[in-house]
Amino acid sequence: MSNTTGTRIPGRNILAVPGPTNIPDAVLRAMVVSMEDHRSTRFPELTNGVLSDLKRLYKTTSGQPFIFPSSGTGAWEAALTNTLSPGDRVLVARFGQFSHLWADMAQRLGFEVEIVDVDWGEGVPVERIEEVLKADKKHQIKGILACHNETATGVTSDIGALRHAMDNAHHPALLFVDGVSSIGCIDFRMDDWRVDLAVTGSQKGLMLPAGLGILCVSPKALKAMEHAKSKRCYFDLGDMIKANATGYFPYTPALSLLYGLRAALDLIFQEGLDKVFARHHYLAQGVRAAVTEGWGLELCAKGPKWYSDTVSAIVVPQGFNAANVIDVAFRRYNLALGAGLSKVAGKVFRIGHLGDLNELMLASAIAGAEMAMLDVGIDVRPGSGTGAATQYWRTHDPRKAQTQQHADQVEPLRRVAAA
Amino acid sequence: MSNTTGTRIPGRNILAVPGPTNIPDAVLRAMVVSMEDHRSTRFPELTNGVLSDLKRLYKTTSGQPFIFPSSGTGAWEAALTNTLSPGDRVLVARFGQFSHLWADMAQRLGFEVEIVDVDWGEGVPVERIEEVLKADKKHQIKGILACHNETATGVTSDIGALRHAMDNAHHPALLFVDGVSSIGCIDFRMDDWRVDLAVTGSQKGLMLPAGLGILCVSPKALKAMEHAKSKRCYFDLGDMIKANATGYFPYTPALSLLYGLRAALDLIFQEGLDKVFARHHYLAQGVRAAVTEGWGLELCAKGPKWYSDTVSAIVVPQGFNAANVIDVAFRRYNLALGAGLSKVAGKVFRIGHLGDLNELMLASAIAGAEMAMLDVGIDVRPGSGTGAATQYWRTHDPRKAQTQQHADQVEPLRRVAAA
Amino acid sequence: MSNTTGTRIPGRNILAVPGPTNIPDAVLRAMVVSMEDHRSTRFPELTNGVLSDLKRLYKTTSGQPFIFPSSGTGAWEAALTNTLSPGDRVLVARFGQFSHLWADMAQRLGFEVEIVDVDWGEGVPVERIEEVLKADKKHQIKGILACHNETATGVTSDIGALRHAMDNAHHPALLFVDGVSSIGCIDFRMDDWRVDLAVTGSQKGLMLPAGLGILCVSPKALKAMEHAKSKRCYFDLGDMIKANATGYFPYTPALSLLYGLRAALDLIFQEGLDKVFARHHYLAQGVRAAVTEGWGLELCAKGPKWYSDTVSAIVVPQGFNAANVIDVAFRRYNLALGAGLSKVAGKVFRIGHLGDLNELMLASAIAGAEMAMLDVGIDVRPGSGTGAATQYWRTHDPRKAQTQQHADQVEPLRRVAAA
Amino acid sequence: MSNTTGTRIPGRNILAVPGPTNIPDAVLRAMVVSMEDHRSTRFPELTNGVLSDLKRLYKTTSGQPFIFPSSGTGAWEAALTNTLSPGDRVLVARFGQFSHLWADMAQRLGFEVEIVDVDWGEGVPVERIEEVLKADKKHQIKGILACHNETATGVTSDIGALRHAMDNAHHPALLFVDGVSSIGCIDFRMDDWRVDLAVTGSQKGLMLPAGLGILCVSPKALKAMEHAKSKRCYFDLGDMIKANATGYFPYTPALSLLYGLRAALDLIFQEGLDKVFARHHYLAQGVRAAVTEGWGLELCAKGPKWYSDTVSAIVVPQGFNAANVIDVAFRRYNLALGAGLSKVAGKVFRIGHLGDLNELMLASAIAGAEMAMLDVGIDVRPGSGTGAATQYWRTHDPRKAQTQQHADQVEPLRRVAAA
Repeated sequence: MSNTTGTRIPGRNILAVPGPTNIPDAVLRAMVVSMEDHRSTRFPELTNGVLSDLKRLYKTTSGQPFIFPSSGTGAWEAALTNTLSPGDRVLVARFGQFSHLWADMAQRLGFEVEIVDVDWGEGVPVERIEEVLKADKKHQIKGILACHNETATGVTSDIGALRHAMDNAHHPALLFVDGVSSIGCIDFRMDDWRVDLAVTGSQKGLMLPAGLGILCVSPKALKAMEHAKSKRCYFDLGDMIKANATGYFPYTPALSLLYGLRAALDLIFQEGLDKVFARHHYLAQGVRAAVTEGWGLELCAKGPKWYSDTVSAIVVPQGFNAANVIDVAFRRYNLALGAGLSKVAGKVFRIGHLGDLNELMLASAIAGAEMAMLDVGIDVRPGSGTGAATQYWRTHDPRKAQTQQHADQVEPLRRVAAA
Repeated sequence: MSNTTGTRIPGRNILAVPGPTNIPDAVLRAMVVSMEDHRSTRFPELTNGVLSDLKRLYKTTSGQPFIFPSSGTGAWEAALTNTLSPGDRVLVARFGQFSHLWADMAQRLGFEVEIVDVDWGEGVPVERIEEVLKADKKHQIKGILACHNETATGVTSDIGALRHAMDNAHHPALLFVDGVSSIGCIDFRMDDWRVDLAVTGSQKGLMLPAGLGILCVSPKALKAMEHAKSKRCYFDLGDMIKANATGYFPYTPALSLLYGLRAALDLIFQEGLDKVFARHHYLAQGVRAAVTEGWGLELCAKGPKWYSDTVSAIVVPQGFNAANVIDVAFRRYNLALGAGLSKVAGKVFRIGHLGDLNELMLASAIAGAEMAMLDVGIDVRPGSGTGAATQYWRTHDPRKAQTQQHADQVEPLRRVAAA
Repeated sequence: MSNTTGTRIPGRNILAVPGPTNIPDAVLRAMVVSMEDHRSTRFPELTNGVLSDLKRLYKTTSGQPFIFPSSGTGAWEAALTNTLSPGDRVLVARFGQFSHLWADMAQRLGFEVEIVDVDWGEGVPVERIEEVLKADKKHQIKGILACHNETATGVTSDIGALRHAMDNAHHPALLFVDGVSSIGCIDFRMDDWRVDLAVTGSQKGLMLPAGLGILCVSPKALKAMEHAKSKRCYFDLGDMIKANATGYFPYTPALSLLYGLRAALDLIFQEGLDKVFARHHYLAQGVRAAVTEGWGLELCAKGPKWYSDTVSAIVVPQGFNAANVIDVAFRRYNLALGAGLSKVAGKVFRIGHLGDLNELMLASAIAGAEMAMLDVGIDVRPGSGTGAATQYWRTHDPRKAQTQQHADQVEPLRRVAAA
Repeated sequence: MSNTTGTRIPGRNILAVPGPTNIPDAVLRAMVVSMEDHRSTRFPELTNGVLSDLKRLYKTTSGQPFIFPSSGTGAWEAALTNTLSPGDRVLVARFGQFSHLWADMAQRLGFEVEIVDVDWGEGVPVERIEEVLKADKKHQIKGILACHNETATGVTSDIGALRHAMDNAHHPALLFVDGVSSIGCIDFRMDDWRVDLAVTGSQKGLMLPAGLGILCVSPKALKAMEHAKSKRCYFDLGDMIKANATGYFPYTPALSLLYGLRAALDLIFQEGLDKVFARHHYLAQGVRAAVTEGWGLELCAKGPKWYSDTVSAIVVPQGFNAANVIDVAFRRYNLALGAGLSKVAGKVFRIGHLGDLNELMLASAIAGAEMAMLDVGIDVRPGSGTGAATQYWRTHDPRKAQTQQHADQVEPLRRVAAA
């Protein structure tokens, strides 16, 4: 670990937690900036550019993005307090630590929270939600909170299907989505799915340090804001709308992170948003091959339907404590794995596979997890994880697939290799 | 300006706004960090270190510091919502845009705000406050909000005297102090003055980019928290206390800024906190010499009693628009001056003199302001501002003063010069 | 000073030596790079780009630029050893420490050096050179070494006139030019002047740290290389030509500096090379106004004909030691002034005004020099230097002039200079 | 690859060439410095510190280190030209591209070079050298050039044995050692082995960008300098000795690299030089396990006696072109492997395992090499390389070994794991 001041383990810390993620050099560089006057005549150029590109990231034309100096948790709060009034009822599906925490926040902020509990390992139970909504004839439910990607269990929910269920129930509730560990990694369609409030943070798919809470808000939600009586000031969207309109912020913005965001969005659109999604899926498949085929272990996610392309929670065999795997990985191999949280503490360890990643960065995480498991006595075959992952990757080159979609060409790399 | 992407004016932008301030190289460097697991076993070393040193910065042993990913505005909100309940009465002295905004926030968050308006250019009216407190027999006033340094007008208030007034009135209200543009620059004594909630941000005396809201809380205020019914979650101190206790944060911290904070605190204590204050005073005196002796202009601050050692608001002569001075300074000379806000818009421009500064950095700001004033037709003598400032500085070397305090030595620099 | 590890003087060190120069943020950032394989298939993109843009910098189409990991001194050696044979005669005009050192190098490398000594404060004596060349009927002189800008005295020579003199004498010697402190700052015309070997370094007009020695070589000089018998290997142009041809280097290149060079060239061409020259002249005029009009002092350069737009050597009055001015400036005011070297040691201090500079950066250097002079007892009026400089700058805005050019088409620089 | 400007492959480029090596964050950060006056009164602190610590790196008390702005190639030249005269005879053992190039340089610089050719894959033939020396009764051989670690073949020679051979022959020649890819990685004992001139560069064990050529010189070699008649100026040690004596350099030093060197030396001595060597051996053993046990391939190095702890050259099976492996690794997997050079071009690819490395960084290089080999048709079992390497590392923890040397303790990590 290179940053902390104590005894340093040589070499690069392999960062395989599901956020914060690895910062690309171009983004790291972009944050080496002198301070400047955030009320200057030139500043709006930066503001307008990043806000405009965030709309592309959210796949929205009508939604309005907001950037707060905060964590994603702050953006959760902004979403709730700007659109709801004390005592408003919200419906939350809970199936992991982060969906739990968001429900908990809603309660603490004074809303009436109806929780639909689901086994950890599954995601938003669309049918049950539809039933609840249909039963809510009076439309007392004002908001539905859905975690697009539950970071704690490695489960992705189908937000399009959730919208479909809401439509079936003809329910006017606002759709709140936590996209902290999905946006910029897994396809997210603000407009197609008519998401009303979509939350993310800087430290996951956006490949930045934590410090920016990002929220995108539909016109419908902006309208709801007018009648929302929750107290708010720091996170007030009204202040932001007014200041952003001319390219400024209501208070001093987190300048270095904004410049980093500028660079991160550039990288994403240079690669192509859909290619970013394809890459995340491809890399995730390799990790899953390592877990299931290589190690013969199980994922916390109960079936491919729920598999997350940004994080895998791996269940250690009975009798072992996943915390030990994580501890050995960190102390002995300079590898940061994600811990199991709450209900799954000790039962799973997590490999984050999101952000600026490629096959070999994941290969080292897989190799390290394997070594740590062996060290604590878990019986996996040395090399089995990397072998399974690399075989998947070798045979599923996404660039090759993309090439073949466009034309029936001879694959160029192989030709180079055979020359 | 080196950061924005449009046409660049060559050379360094001279940053003379009262925050964000110039980042020392050592701090800029310290923020070039790879991300890491904020739940690792090594992370508490960082957390504990900065929290501990923040206590030294606040001159407190009993107070507890908190660091939020937010601006200073967020820390204002944290102070209010964690200790007050809806409808609680607070007393605010208002004499500038920032004291105004804090009062406004208190109103929007649902507190009953009693405002004592004071002419802009003066500070906290200690006698009037004492009267109000004495009249509040039932102790309905729960908090007093005081802006230690009003950034908009360049006015510093006497918080020790305010505490004295509260004591005279035997009033138990909590003392809230906005130290955003004072802490780390002007002597601030949390314990001596029994301040209950003291707010600052990262982008002023701490010489960092914006992005950290910092709050220090007295034991009395922490106790008040138990009964405070304001809704809060992101800014909840309880969550922070719990997580900080083991060296962690309740949500992903703004890592690069924390490493920057580590480096900034190191610089401050290497220089010596009291020497930092002395330097700010010495530099401010030079700026004031430029304004009053050199240019023959007036400060917004009405008399030396109110002079701020971190920012000077300079009143342009009748018939001139200070906004033009600022505009010419920025576009023509690559100098960022602070604008007049609200009541004093167009009437003043501001020179920030806080953070990592020295004589010559200020000399360039003074020279640039002078040129811009001349360009818009204000009649000042070329060189008069720098001449007056430099004469002050030449004859008031703080290091010399310190040396002579300790011993009656021959001044070493002069000897070198004469050798 | 922010870098060294001892006691730090607060604030930014004002760097007013004539190199290394201030690094723009964009260049500093560009050097924050991970290492990479310098033999990769992608590397030539970087090599080819910088080599191609160096030709634009030199104003040459036929010349070939070379980049060595070395200082400018190394490029001097490369120029000599690649084109001359032991015992070859070279003619050098000597009028400062750097022209002296180059002559000295030529002697040490085994060439026969004929020195034309000139008073320090003047430059290449074109008429005397012409006489010498005319007298050299047998063309025994193989090379003429000319310092375009003598950094030690602040004197610029007229290389075009030197070429004219060589033409008048019909002399075939190679023309070697030291452009270390001129190229990228003062108009340099490799092709127009038929310069054969033009040397520069990274740390002056190129706004980089030292570490790259840069040389541009005419076809005539490349041809001379074939018969040059001086021993050389590290600096051998033949190895470079061969490797550069495919975009590589014969040994590991100084990668971070190359990326910095890429960024620096981008900045120069974004501003416009001729605008960069105009800016240097404009800024230099302000400094000279401070020296002569403001302080009533003299420049080492004997008359406007020799004035350098990149560095001014300022003569202190009789009875004072310029070293003391420099020492006080550094220790007391965090200002780095250039020292007088060799013959002018103690008699002059130097202000570098080259690279990424603007008016206010120089204003602080002038203010600091003024304070230091006063501190050592030199009688200058406080504010007189900045007053004179800023008055010049206020009334000679080069951007304003350029705007008028399109209307009037009168050549702006000459007007500025003559004003 | 994150630096170049063309299409970017996502994620970190895995840098497994044998230099330049991975830069630790602490070193990268340390090079983010503003320029400063390299003739200031504070500068010697930096110079003296790094020169002093370089002596520790070389394990010398009597030797004198020198730092040139150059590549390691420049330091080769400095070693030769400062101690030899034209026509002097040197003896070189040649067994790879770098020993070849050094011999070639010696010829080009005008020395008489006697080459002892050895099969590529072996190192300095100590017995044969001893014979040659014994036969050289007149002591016409003035220098012996030995490549401590031949980077092209992954072969380490025994310099101690070479010194023993010289002693046996009672031969007074100077001992020149190329330690570019060994010093700071493999035990190097300047004093014990009485090495006279030891060359290294910044971009290998010192974990910096290229740009510094480093040379350490024995008192005997310094004495030889007095009579050495080779022409030299840029690389003249005399100039350096004179300037270094007061903490300065004869020309502008490569400042950012010097600050990086300061940080790199700090990292090395914090870890402990001998622990750095042990780590390199441990990591290299893992790579060799991957190659021989995992893949069933052969190293270019002919037997353990010659195995290099900093680079492994891996022989691809007959019928395959190693260049294709390298090309696929780079284009498809963002992995930079070292190419086979000259005689072994196409026959080997190289994995550098030197500098700031750990197990998992190498695991990714091994995994990538394996994938690339499979892609070009080489028959290795997926996961076999990482499996073999990780098994080695798991069972040979150097920290564990060190602990047990000191005390017969229970191994702490295992206890944690079992808790």
